[in-house]
Amino acid sequence: MTGEARVDFRTHPGQYRHWRLGCDGPVATLTMDVDEQGGIVPGYELKLNSYDLGVDIELYDAVQRLRFEHPGVRAVVVTSGKEKIFCAGANIRMLAASPHPWKVNFCKFTNETRNGIEDASAYSGQTWLAALNGTASGGGYELALACEHIMLIDDRSSAVSLPELPLLGVLPGTGGLTRVVDKRHVRRDRADYFSTKSEGLSGKKAVAWRLVDEAVPRAQWNEVVRERAEELAGRSGRPADATGIELTPLAKTRTDEEISYGHVTARLDRARGVAEITVTGPEAEPPASLDALHAQGAGFWTLAVTRELDDLILDLRTNELELGTWVLRTHGDPASVLAYDQFLLDHHDDWLAGEIVLYLKRTLKRLDVTSRSLLALIEPGSCFAGSLLELALAADRSYQLSGVFEEIDPEAAPATVAVGPLNLGPLPMSNGLTRLQTRFLGDPDALAAAEKRSGDALAAEDADALGLVTFAPDDIDWDEEVRIAIEERASFSPDALTGLEANYRFPGPETLETKIFGRLTAWQNWIFYRPNASGPDGALRKYGTGQRADFDRKRV
Amino acid sequence: MTGEARVDFRTHPGQYRHWRLGCDGPVATLTMDVDEQGGIVPGYELKLNSYDLGVDIELYDAVQRLRFEHPGVRAVVVTSGKEKIFCAGANIRMLAASPHPWKVNFCKFTNETRNGIEDASAYSGQTWLAALNGTASGGGYELALACEHIMLIDDRSSAVSLPELPLLGVLPGTGGLTRVVDKRHVRRDRADYFSTKSEGLSGKKAVAWRLVDEAVPRAQWNEVVRERAEELAGRSGRPADATGIELTPLAKTRTDEEISYGHVTARLDRARGVAEITVTGPEAEPPASLDALHAQGAGFWTLAVTRELDDLILDLRTNELELGTWVLRTHGDPASVLAYDQFLLDHHDDWLAGEIVLYLKRTLKRLDVTSRSLLALIEPGSCFAGSLLELALAADRSYQLSGVFEEIDPEAAPATVAVGPLNLGPLPMSNGLTRLQTRFLGDPDALAAAEKRSGDALAAEDADALGLVTFAPDDIDWDEEVRIAIEERASFSPDALTGLEANYRFPGPETLETKIFGRLTAWQNWIFYRPNASGPDGALRKYGTGQRADFDRKRV
Repeated sequence: MTGEARVDFRTHPGQYRHWRLGCDGPVATLTMDVDEQGGIVPGYELKLNSYDLGVDIELYDAVQRLRFEHPGVRAVVVTSGKEKIFCAGANIRMLAASPHPWKVNFCKFTNETRNGIEDASAYSGQTWLAALNGTASGGGYELALACEHIMLIDDRSSAVSLPELPLLGVLPGTGGLTRVVDKRHVRRDRADYFSTKSEGLSGKKAVAWRLVDEAVPRAQWNEVVRERAEELAGRSGRPADATGIELTPLAKTRTDEEISYGHVTARLDRARGVAEITVTGPEAEPPASLDALHAQGAGFWTLAVTRELDDLILDLRTNELELGTWVLRTHGDPASVLAYDQFLLDHHDDWLAGEIVLYLKRTLKRLDVTSRSLLALIEPGSCFAGSLLELALAADRSYQLSGVFEEIDPEAAPATVAVGPLNLGPLPMSNGLTRLQTRFLGDPDALAAAEKRSGDALAAEDADALGLVTFAPDDIDWDEEVRIAIEERASFSPDALTGLEANYRFPGPETLETKIFGRLTAWQNWIFYRPNASGPDGALRKYGTGQRADFDRKRV
Repeated sequence: MTGEARVDFRTHPGQYRHWRLGCDGPVATLTMDVDEQGGIVPGYELKLNSYDLGVDIELYDAVQRLRFEHPGVRAVVVTSGKEKIFCAGANIRMLAASPHPWKVNFCKFTNETRNGIEDASAYSGQTWLAALNGTASGGGYELALACEHIMLIDDRSSAVSLPELPLLGVLPGTGGLTRVVDKRHVRRDRADYFSTKSEGLSGKKAVAWRLVDEAVPRAQWNEVVRERAEELAGRSGRPADATGIELTPLAKTRTDEEISYGHVTARLDRARGVAEITVTGPEAEPPASLDALHAQGAGFWTLAVTRELDDLILDLRTNELELGTWVLRTHGDPASVLAYDQFLLDHHDDWLAGEIVLYLKRTLKRLDVTSRSLLALIEPGSCFAGSLLELALAADRSYQLSGVFEEIDPEAAPATVAVGPLNLGPLPMSNGLTRLQTRFLGDPDALAAAEKRSGDALAAEDADALGLVTFAPDDIDWDEEVRIAIEERASFSPDALTGLEANYRFPGPETLETKIFGRLTAWQNWIFYRPNASGPDGALRKYGTGQRADFDRKRV
């Protein structure tokens, strides 16, 4: 709980303690059956299928494996292995005992996994169906809300509910509120009533209020669930005969000073509060054919580097709270990166190529909502092109060296950046715009000028003139400018930086995702932090004690 | 500061301590010249044209008087009466010493006034021009950002800046960040750099980065400001020969138990934490002509009731933090309300009729962002029709009595609600949708059905079936249902209610306004509350002491 023991996000079905994954032709069933004694940290029991970060790590792993290892699956039924209870939501004792950053990180990761489930339904032809064979409350119902179709057993006791407000004095904060009104279009006054009614709603009324899609009597339950799953599976465009690839164990070395994978390393500089991350470009040509891609599987550069980045982001976010600045570098051949991007685009009809791009998109979104300052350093030998240029575009600032480092390698080719086709559409941010569109919001001429140079290797002066980088200092100024930027960042209030970045990173339109991360999360952070929730007499601490919380009644 | 002395939002130019308002034909000049000793509460000096709530109350009054009393004004120049400084923003010592709700309320009101300035530029033909004749920092620059055109004197010392992050460890939170990226389209990495640079930017660079529209040398300053103001004035469609109406002093009686005006009363029930608000409909027919409207001026029902509601909302929000639930009732003839609405629509080309509708729109938006639970009670004798139906649509829940109160008045006509033309467009919420559209988001059939009944007096059963009210209990259930709703509300965490309401009240699209209130404000609330800002070693407390803040470095 205190973060002293590091959280490892790597797992596989053979290690699951809380879920069972079964595949039966086009329908997979993911059964939640939480091991009460299996909390990720000591101090609480995971009763009533309540969850903690460990349960969610397994769920995320299952989502990923379904997409990559089980391409024949076209519908995923998520249900419970317990009697009468689907899922009671996040474990309250865990929340009550957790420090603030743990709660915030936990909620963020949980919601990202739900976004992954929504991606699978929307883009992967794997439609998720929530088969609520018992009560789904709080986060349990929020998990259901992430599914495309929600079925609730109609047995006079099973209900859906969001009891956070009445019972805990916090919000249904991992998307619950936003998904209720913005995704399912529950009328706002009904959402109000529903959120105040701790026992929730069931049966026909839950259907009439749009909280679930159907209520099914116990006698027909198994049959109708199967029927519905097959209907959803029938809509999928997934190939029937595809063979999955194995998400092989991620080779990772982790010390106090460094985290390293095959293509990604992070040097942890605790004195400066910095993680220096380097991503290495492909070392070989792209595969010669689609078959060769499938043969490479998890070894294919884009997929490998995405998995490594994904794990690194989660590791640093959860385990290294005081490394407030991430410095992003790349190393390799820009042309190779663009070649891999092109290979993926050339085969966008292939399920695996499609999944890889979707995974990269989701991982870049995870970077966008990470509460760390991101600085990209574009130096000679780097490969900020196409998919890797997204790292610089996701950064809060980028510095591209003009010329070369005279004392290090006067003969080096100057650093370049290159816009490629993956920057022009397939990797939108959660606001629905590409990072280039977001960058040039309200300036279509600048956007067009940058797009026009697609494919060109742009030296610092050109990139600066086009607005693709923030600053383009030369050798003489580089060290000083970069050092000051990093030192300055470490001197600012970490909270204010989090708020600042959360606001200017997402200009332009808002979506369900930006609302959840930008609005709902911000309110929940505040509410979690206030004594009315987390103080000694707050609702989270008093839950289950039989005593009422003692609220400061001032409305703010 | 502690809220013990009540804040009064009523003022007039003869009382101003901090602003001078001068009109010269179509151009008005509003000069900020803050009285250092004129703080609204003791304990700080308002140096460098810094402001507190008292300064902002005068600004809001000036905005309103310009719109109603000076219809000939087509451009408003806001400038400073001090040497070298336009405005240093919100006073830091005031912020540091203020309790959390004061800070939050202050920021909300400040930003609402800026929205009013933006309304005047966008809809009233009174375009605001910021003539920054000295440095505009923090809230000073945020005030400029609310203006349509920003001019900065180019004198090698005057700059614009958002130094909140580096100096105070908080956000430029009254719209600054959002207006920089979403309104002025400053590139996000430049917004980052700008927000970390406490001295700000000036001259050509400030123009190139879109932070200001032009930088003008001191020698040409007065001439160019005048020229620009006349240009902006020239675009206005305001009538040249209009005569203003006087915003006469608001007659108000205020005790510990009751606030009452001509058409609005609020009974303050401290034991239950409730303000029982009753709005009375028009007692006479609408004016017979446009001339009669102008002759009535501030006495015209819609304007009078809007002014009273506006003042009441501000009073209760600021002075009555523990009255967490507002119960909204109306009393009068629904047909009369609809007749006044129709009168305004029939004369929508008239500047005064237009201003009244704009003012009502803004006041309803103020209600929407009020962090109090809103319950509408629709009883016999009420007049929730048209403009007053908006109160019920703004409420978190509405209860319409089915039938009558048998023991009170068995002969009464049952309560009705009526949709009118003012519900169908002229009074959008800050999300850009009407309250009806928001209510029926994603349900166009329900919206069409409700619109189709426009003009009909709808009894509880009909209103319930159409989805216009939340519940329609009868006489037998009414007392119990309403009592439970109110008692329950008082039992919930006030913080969680604030977050809940802030989220589900604004489904659908987001705009500059919803982003500022829903996202930026939420982050700022959290940041204000954290020890890194407000703790004994936080940045707000350490500002000006020569000591550095001591931050908890964990990123959350």
